[in-house]
Amino acid sequence: MPYVPPLDDYRLLLGHLTGFAKVTATERFAEAGGDTAEAILTEAGRLAADVLAPLQRPGDLHPARLENGVVRTSPGFAEGFRAIAEGGWIGISAEESSGGMGLPLTLATAVNEMFSGGCLALQLAPLMSQGQIEALEHHASDELKALYLPKLTSGDWIGTMNLTEPQAGSDVGALTTKAEPKGDGTYAITGQKIYITWGDNDFTENVCHLVLARLPDGPSGTKGISLFMVPKYLPQDDGTPGEANALRVVSLEHKLGLHGSPTAVMSYEGATGWLVGAEHGGMAAMFTMMNNARLGVGTQGIGVAEAATQLAMAYASDRKQGRASGRGTIIEHADVRRMLATMQAQTFAARAIALMCAGALDMARATGDAAQAARGALLTPIAKAFGTDTGCEVAQMGIQVHGGMGFIEETGAAQLARDVRVTAIYEGTNGIQALDLVGRKLMDGGEAAFALIDSVITEAEGARATRPVLADHLWQAAESLREATEHLVALEPAARGEVAVPYLRAFALVLGGQAHLCAAAHGGPERQALAAFYLRRMLPEHAGLLAHVREAGEAGLPAADELLA
Amino acid sequence: MPYVPPLDDYRLLLGHLTGFAKVTATERFAEAGGDTAEAILTEAGRLAADVLAPLQRPGDLHPARLENGVVRTSPGFAEGFRAIAEGGWIGISAEESSGGMGLPLTLATAVNEMFSGGCLALQLAPLMSQGQIEALEHHASDELKALYLPKLTSGDWIGTMNLTEPQAGSDVGALTTKAEPKGDGTYAITGQKIYITWGDNDFTENVCHLVLARLPDGPSGTKGISLFMVPKYLPQDDGTPGEANALRVVSLEHKLGLHGSPTAVMSYEGATGWLVGAEHGGMAAMFTMMNNARLGVGTQGIGVAEAATQLAMAYASDRKQGRASGRGTIIEHADVRRMLATMQAQTFAARAIALMCAGALDMARATGDAAQAARGALLTPIAKAFGTDTGCEVAQMGIQVHGGMGFIEETGAAQLARDVRVTAIYEGTNGIQALDLVGRKLMDGGEAAFALIDSVITEAEGARATRPVLADHLWQAAESLREATEHLVALEPAARGEVAVPYLRAFALVLGGQAHLCAAAHGGPERQALAAFYLRRMLPEHAGLLAHVREAGEAGLPAADELLA
Repeated sequence: MPYVPPLDDYRLLLGHLTGFAKVTATERFAEAGGDTAEAILTEAGRLAADVLAPLQRPGDLHPARLENGVVRTSPGFAEGFRAIAEGGWIGISAEESSGGMGLPLTLATAVNEMFSGGCLALQLAPLMSQGQIEALEHHASDELKALYLPKLTSGDWIGTMNLTEPQAGSDVGALTTKAEPKGDGTYAITGQKIYITWGDNDFTENVCHLVLARLPDGPSGTKGISLFMVPKYLPQDDGTPGEANALRVVSLEHKLGLHGSPTAVMSYEGATGWLVGAEHGGMAAMFTMMNNARLGVGTQGIGVAEAATQLAMAYASDRKQGRASGRGTIIEHADVRRMLATMQAQTFAARAIALMCAGALDMARATGDAAQAARGALLTPIAKAFGTDTGCEVAQMGIQVHGGMGFIEETGAAQLARDVRVTAIYEGTNGIQALDLVGRKLMDGGEAAFALIDSVITEAEGARATRPVLADHLWQAAESLREATEHLVALEPAARGEVAVPYLRAFALVLGGQAHLCAAAHGGPERQALAAFYLRRMLPEHAGLLAHVREAGEAGLPAADELLA
Repeated sequence: MPYVPPLDDYRLLLGHLTGFAKVTATERFAEAGGDTAEAILTEAGRLAADVLAPLQRPGDLHPARLENGVVRTSPGFAEGFRAIAEGGWIGISAEESSGGMGLPLTLATAVNEMFSGGCLALQLAPLMSQGQIEALEHHASDELKALYLPKLTSGDWIGTMNLTEPQAGSDVGALTTKAEPKGDGTYAITGQKIYITWGDNDFTENVCHLVLARLPDGPSGTKGISLFMVPKYLPQDDGTPGEANALRVVSLEHKLGLHGSPTAVMSYEGATGWLVGAEHGGMAAMFTMMNNARLGVGTQGIGVAEAATQLAMAYASDRKQGRASGRGTIIEHADVRRMLATMQAQTFAARAIALMCAGALDMARATGDAAQAARGALLTPIAKAFGTDTGCEVAQMGIQVHGGMGFIEETGAAQLARDVRVTAIYEGTNGIQALDLVGRKLMDGGEAAFALIDSVITEAEGARATRPVLADHLWQAAESLREATEHLVALEPAARGEVAVPYLRAFALVLGGQAHLCAAAHGGPERQALAAFYLRRMLPEHAGLLAHVREAGEAGLPAADELLA
């Protein structure tokens, strides 16, 4: 599975849509300007193509396994992780004081996408560390920071997130893992955690588990949860790993995909932990970690969508079939082209949204601008859900382009669809993302949403003179989205849940429309053809989606007992 | 995975939508009237639930494998096949003169759906025989019929279809397998065939391969293809299997799903075959087989959709999670209910379409009515594509309802999604189905399509007095479909291909709307709630789909070189 980094897309989007010039005009990110961005993207793209992409199939064929309590990783993964670490990529957006590069999230997002396109199962490992680094930077004591951050950014150690328990998934507040003060400033952690991504490995010196647990006096629910650093090996005075902590991998899950990524059931048996952040303040730290990870997971979906599109394009350009074209390749068939155009156009739209989100978060970080922070917060659930839905849908379409070969595992198309499936579920299911959008992110009365929609409308109006048909399609869709948002904001938050998912998707489609209009303006004939396809054929999907919103609060969603009957 | 046969749906649809009373009022199908249908459905449902459903997981966990050239099937599959055979289900719609029950396709469709919901991998085996029986009934010599049909309907022998070769998939005409006359009325068949479903097994006395091959004087393309019966063991004079034929299983494919169903690469090495139908007339026989199989494959998708819905319903009704509901089960969450309602409503719509199709084909068979034959032919690609798309989409949604558990194989949700995926590909990809719809099936100038759409409009108008909102939603959608059909019919057939898939889906959504309106009229409050959900929230998807059609022939689909750039 060769992989070609989509550098032209990044250049176009950073140059004309996401305001990357403004980001690098800030003092904080001044060093990312000029040739730096181009060098970063080119170098990361090379790693994704040359080092990571060759690991994609071996990870599936030779899953990580548990042998006598020790996790054995897939062939080549140790070297792949080392290459990521040595390139400095784990700490790409970490503070320089933590050993990171301090680069904008915009670049980290593009890099994470390329690594995901190369080998998603392995890319998950540094992604977990990145979330942990961000949580420690914001919430850990100076002592913990000094000990852990350099090790995490260097890749000598690796980080994990331990939230879920068998009875506590999306409902984190139901967790029962206990933390008891040992009297020496540390805590004894006892409980079982499940779905621990990269819960162990055989290539880093240490594994640093951030574990949510409840103190003896912690109230029930999320308000009684605290966060603890629980390393696999207890650091000695000189910082090197010493005695083994009282924790173990109980088992690895047998999963639909991501076989190269060990998903562990972890048991903490009075393991020693250090408090991160305030007592009972674990959720705040967790959200820091998850917010970062949400955008990262969105880019995972986009990376796989890109890989699936490239695989399908290669197949369709090579596979000879069909009388209609005199035994030309199947790309000559209109329906195959429809699928390929859909895959390309949707992947581009999702990529644009992720980078818009990163750009807003960068501006907020660099300038403290509240409007940019609100925009980044608004875009985060959209980037996560639409990015991962796009990954799943595009990978499924990739199977279809392959015809019968798509069902045969050696093609690799099926693996992409299996691997990416979980991205729509973890870091908060896409349903949870949509609830976040229509709930928390509209709590400002829709201010951030209306500002974003207005900016799309302004773009559409500006393009009326040069591209009247495309501009009008976007304008109409954005106006419909505005009306739907007004309707939604007027509803009680509890009544919004049933239309949250279609609303989020409609929002994403409109934002994607802006990206395509931008691409048509600044790109060549291919960009214009793809933009026309997206705006004229794909964007009209918003009508059906927003019909859900119009019905919100009216009759139309069966009650539980009506479904059960 | 318990499975509950959807008998109430069949009762409602046969009683009020598909005109089953008219079918059983014909002389041909008079015996299927009265209590027979109820008894058939109940008995088949019991077999699906009690015998087949328990084989679903073992088939995935213990795949069929090739050992020293012999296929070893999954545990329990031999007994499962025997139970299907002994119930007479293989020959359910075969002529009584062939040893069959001679029952309407309507009942066979419902039965096939239930068996697919129980265990798709195993159900494929009798489905292959059913297609072969139909082809032999229409095209084979009396001698071949007398020898093979009783063995196939009894399940002592089993049938396969051999179309595809490595270079000839959807483009069957490119095949190169040769058939040379041996001078004794038989032919020597030489070539390689791939994707042979149930290409071999260890539980039937013989395996009867229907193989497409080219005679020495056969012109190139589909016009030079003939069909041959090539049994694994050559029948002796007394009809019992004798000497092994010169054919073998080269390998089994490593597939995304359906691990219990052996998909073989077959090699014919001068194997003895008997001509079925006329020389160079193989495609006609093949189409007989495939037409039958297409509706059958559509029902496979629906069966899996039903199984996935039941699995998700059970999980959502049992899984406790979430503060919003005070630790109630997740079915209390609006977005989970939205998913479950979508799954139920879409499965019902797809089921209704398959049964409408079967009903029209039954009427055509019983009365020779050309309009019913045209309606059945029109509905066949819709039933196949929408049924299997529904299987794939509903199974994916089922994974989502399970959250993290959906990605873990032991839940079974992922298996359903893996297994059903190929149904959108085999027996003609869903893209090919859509091309059949907008090409061959509109060659009558749209007569059959307009007649069907008009019948929907009439139903909608009739319901205006009792259900004005729902009736109006359906009326609007059907009118839009009529306009789109008028637009499509006015286009050159070659220009229709690029919008074929969205057009087919819009057609299916409208037909599903008629079914839901009917269910609201004849069902209780649950049916009415589901119908409202479908007509008010799901049916509006047609707007986006028909936007594709409006753009047909205009700009909007990138050319091959624009995609490749």
